[in-house]
Amino acid sequence: MDRYDIAIIGTGPAGVSAAITAKVRNKNILLFGSRKSSEKVYRATQIQNYPGLPQISGEELAEQYQKQLDQLGIAVTEERVSAVYAMGSYFVIQASGKMYEASSVILAAGVVQGKTFPGEKELLGRGVSYCATCDAMLYRGKTAAVIGYTKEAEGESEFLAELAEKVYYLPMYKEEPEITEETGKIQIIREKPQAITGTDQVEILQTDKREYHVDGVFILRDSISAEQLVPGLEIEDGHVKVNLQMETNIPGCFACGDVAGKPYQYVKAAGQGNVAALSAVNWLTRQRLEKQQSGIITK
Amino acid sequence: MDRYDIAIIGTGPAGVSAAITAKVRNKNILLFGSRKSSEKVYRATQIQNYPGLPQISGEELAEQYQKQLDQLGIAVTEERVSAVYAMGSYFVIQASGKMYEASSVILAAGVVQGKTFPGEKELLGRGVSYCATCDAMLYRGKTAAVIGYTKEAEGESEFLAELAEKVYYLPMYKEEPEITEETGKIQIIREKPQAITGTDQVEILQTDKREYHVDGVFILRDSISAEQLVPGLEIEDGHVKVNLQMETNIPGCFACGDVAGKPYQYVKAAGQGNVAALSAVNWLTRQRLEKQQSGIITK
Repeated sequence: MDRYDIAIIGTGPAGVSAAITAKVRNKNILLFGSRKSSEKVYRATQIQNYPGLPQISGEELAEQYQKQLDQLGIAVTEERVSAVYAMGSYFVIQASGKMYEASSVILAAGVVQGKTFPGEKELLGRGVSYCATCDAMLYRGKTAAVIGYTKEAEGESEFLAELAEKVYYLPMYKEEPEITEETGKIQIIREKPQAITGTDQVEILQTDKREYHVDGVFILRDSISAEQLVPGLEIEDGHVKVNLQMETNIPGCFACGDVAGKPYQYVKAAGQGNVAALSAVNWLTRQRLEKQQSGIITK
Repeated sequence: MDRYDIAIIGTGPAGVSAAITAKVRNKNILLFGSRKSSEKVYRATQIQNYPGLPQISGEELAEQYQKQLDQLGIAVTEERVSAVYAMGSYFVIQASGKMYEASSVILAAGVVQGKTFPGEKELLGRGVSYCATCDAMLYRGKTAAVIGYTKEAEGESEFLAELAEKVYYLPMYKEEPEITEETGKIQIIREKPQAITGTDQVEILQTDKREYHVDGVFILRDSISAEQLVPGLEIEDGHVKVNLQMETNIPGCFACGDVAGKPYQYVKAAGQGNVAALSAVNWLTRQRLEKQQSGIITK
């Protein structure tokens, strides 16, 4: 498996900034996110305080970012990252059911909008999942619900329906879902999820209207919380704990932007992304020197 | 004397960003620096990694900043700040011999390029000065040297020559000085200053060619070091010590950009300026609430 120098998770201002600086420093990078930048960026009506770009709309800023990524030849991997595992000297990133390896990781995935559902944390891994592509095989012949926050969740539901007996799809966005699955296994439900219950395993998804007996609940948010994404990551006041160099408690793992704390501001995120990239570059250099000194030379 | 909400020192990316955000938050601000942004910005050939502005020249970035300041109605006070004094509940800023008051201060003055001269720190206040406009009166009928790092220092030398008997002007830039003083009191010397010596007071300025007997040496850099600017400010590894909210050890005093540490990067500075401004805004709110609670209501 190819090992990237730096995997960057998120394409908001923090992730884009980190990618640009890492690329300018000639690193082999893997950037996960949407080519359209983050939803928070491209939905912003007008940004008043981004230095250098007076009164720019979020859409224009996203276009500028995309243009810059294109100019530097930076590709965006439009896959949902569901977990990052620190393996000691490298990281494994699980995205849309695939595995990637990187020597360092920059978390720039933003903050989860809204609260978790009652029962979500308690039943995580026991019926609650954040990746349909990863766990669909566990639901062969079973019933599952999908709470989808973006249209990308529709594709994951369709994949799930190939294996499951029944899929309840609860869109959390206004647009009409375009489910093309033809077997009728997917039922679209316009109700508000309220809680997930069960003794050892998920049993019931409760909405504002009624209860659904299910074996699993997939919650497909635009981003998942950092502590769920990276086991062992130190959190403080709901954000990833970082220092001024954007280092987390895990060596080789950096965080920047909203995920690393308030204020939630575009240029603050961009600035921290830049710092995270340079810290990752320095970290890679130190790692290489240490390996050389200990005689373990890798290409 | 009018008291400003926030005094911002520096017009590089950090200072400009702080000014923009403070202004958007309706604060009454005082911005010190050059309308052309910092020298480091407008002299940059090409900036590769400023997110949103692909391959922009420093001059273009400076123009964009200026446009944005103009749009928001932010004036730049083109005066050299020589000292900031923390008075407890407010700050006094000394600039080009004038005094200003502000409830909070954001330091964004960049880093001093190059080392201090041997003897500079030891003789500071005993013949070594950073402000000719402030201290010229002490040199009536005496001899002083001016080490000028920018063309603005020429004007200060001329003012000094109105009082002093003799002024040696040592330009540290390539351009030819345009001294219009007609009495011949100013002598331009193209030599490299190497040390300042003296027992209790400055006695000699030593260059690479010879020694000059002087009563004082004015060192007029583009910016002076933060610890010299703000007495009592905590410094760590040569930079102002800040936390992630850009707070220094002095309540109400914030720092951002190069002055607050490495990496020296434009977008990192802009991001920190944004954070410093919001921290100052929060600080002002807390101060007002505390005053209201203690019954001391000020306008």
